Amino acid sequence: MKKILLISNSIVFGYGYLDHCADEIIDFLRPVKTVLFIPYALKDRNKYTNIARERMNKMGINLYSIHQQKNPKEAVENAESIFIGGGNTFRLLNELYKNNLIGVIRKKVLNGGPYIGTSAGSNVACPTIKTTNDMPIVEPPAFEALNLVPFQVNPHYFDPDPNSKHMGETREQRIREFVEENNTTVVGLREGAWIRIENNTAQLKGLAGAKIFRKAKLSREYKAGSKIKFLLNKNKS
Amino acid sequence: MKKILLISNSIVFGYGYLDHCADEIIDFLRPVKTVLFIPYALKDRNKYTNIARERMNKMGINLYSIHQQKNPKEAVENAESIFIGGGNTFRLLNELYKNNLIGVIRKKVLNGGPYIGTSAGSNVACPTIKTTNDMPIVEPPAFEALNLVPFQVNPHYFDPDPNSKHMGETREQRIREFVEENNTTVVGLREGAWIRIENNTAQLKGLAGAKIFRKAKLSREYKAGSKIKFLLNKNKS
Repeated sequence: MKKILLISNSIVFGYGYLDHCADEIIDFLRPVKTVLFIPYALKDRNKYTNIARERMNKMGINLYSIHQQKNPKEAVENAESIFIGGGNTFRLLNELYKNNLIGVIRKKVLNGGPYIGTSAGSNVACPTIKTTNDMPIVEPPAFEALNLVPFQVNPHYFDPDPNSKHMGETREQRIREFVEENNTTVVGLREGAWIRIENNTAQLKGLAGAKIFRKAKLSREYKAGSKIKFLLNKNKS
Repeated sequence: MKKILLISNSIVFGYGYLDHCADEIIDFLRPVKTVLFIPYALKDRNKYTNIARERMNKMGINLYSIHQQKNPKEAVENAESIFIGGGNTFRLLNELYKNNLIGVIRKKVLNGGPYIGTSAGSNVACPTIKTTNDMPIVEPPAFEALNLVPFQVNPHYFDPDPNSKHMGETREQRIREFVEENNTTVVGLREGAWIRIENNTAQLKGLAGAKIFRKAKLSREYKAGSKIKFLLNKNKS
């Protein structure tokens, strides 16, 4: 039975790192107390690991990083749970491929190993990274990702600013372009929101809600607390 | 001698389509009066072509679209000039590959055929599409693009909003991530700005300026009117 926590973003305005979702992380992991951290989305892995370790320690959770292990693949196999942090999604996915981790992480999670992702870490949990907001600064071997859930997440989702004079596409327009080309459901996960998947149920939780986009349907708002059944259905593609 | 016009965006706030750069386009193309349009970046190619044709006609320029030609490759070979419009950069580049147009467009421009790009059309003129703002809704065979210029453009460039409560990366942070991973110069081209390349000179023009990012250097602002010599230098990579 899969246990997956997909968090829109690690720092909500006015809060510290992971503050807004700390209670949820503790509850989600229980009784697990040890997390394997994957910091590949940022350039400075040591610094990133120190920040994540300090915050997890405060929650009573032990964190160690994959980049400080001799054998990354074995580290995943032996991990109690996995936490992939945010940063650049293309860099992250590229490193997951380079280190041959796609299959082994997927296996771990399908066998019930708890998975936590924030931002880019939520993007790579999806079938592809095609709904990331990040700049494609490096070219991964493919856009296919961990495919832990049958839907796409767009983290940091936000509404158009009606007073903006900027003429670039809005987030909504970008997701609509995705839906023009693909059949997969997209969850526009607002900052502060997360999706918790457990016992074959997907529940939207946190400080905000989500806007969900599906092919040939109107997009629809969901409030924090909603259980969203169709999210775990496989898409016809 | 290359003739290239890279425009940040086709619609500036308060103006109609191509209004802000119409005089420049006329002057840039002179004496050429016919343009081959490439509408691949948007889904509805007919609609896009009609809009572009109408606007170009008002400038006294004839426009016809590649998607209405029997043989796209021959259409490029026979074109007097090329205009690639904006939309989604990944979709655009994917279609350029599908139609085998990378080499033939490059050859045309290296032989002096005038090239106009707006937004995604400016992105694909660069060595790669790694500085696009667009969502990776489709996966092109590679990120390498037309490589008409030795620098990268980031269209629709804008400064961080100091009052924003949004925690996603700013545009500047995204470009700094690119520079962490790559050696190529990036021109953050503000809305309303363009770069005109002619007689081996690159000049920044239009209603706004640009911010230029280079590895191991401070980023620097340039005003409209600036001739920027180092832009046409090859990068060491």
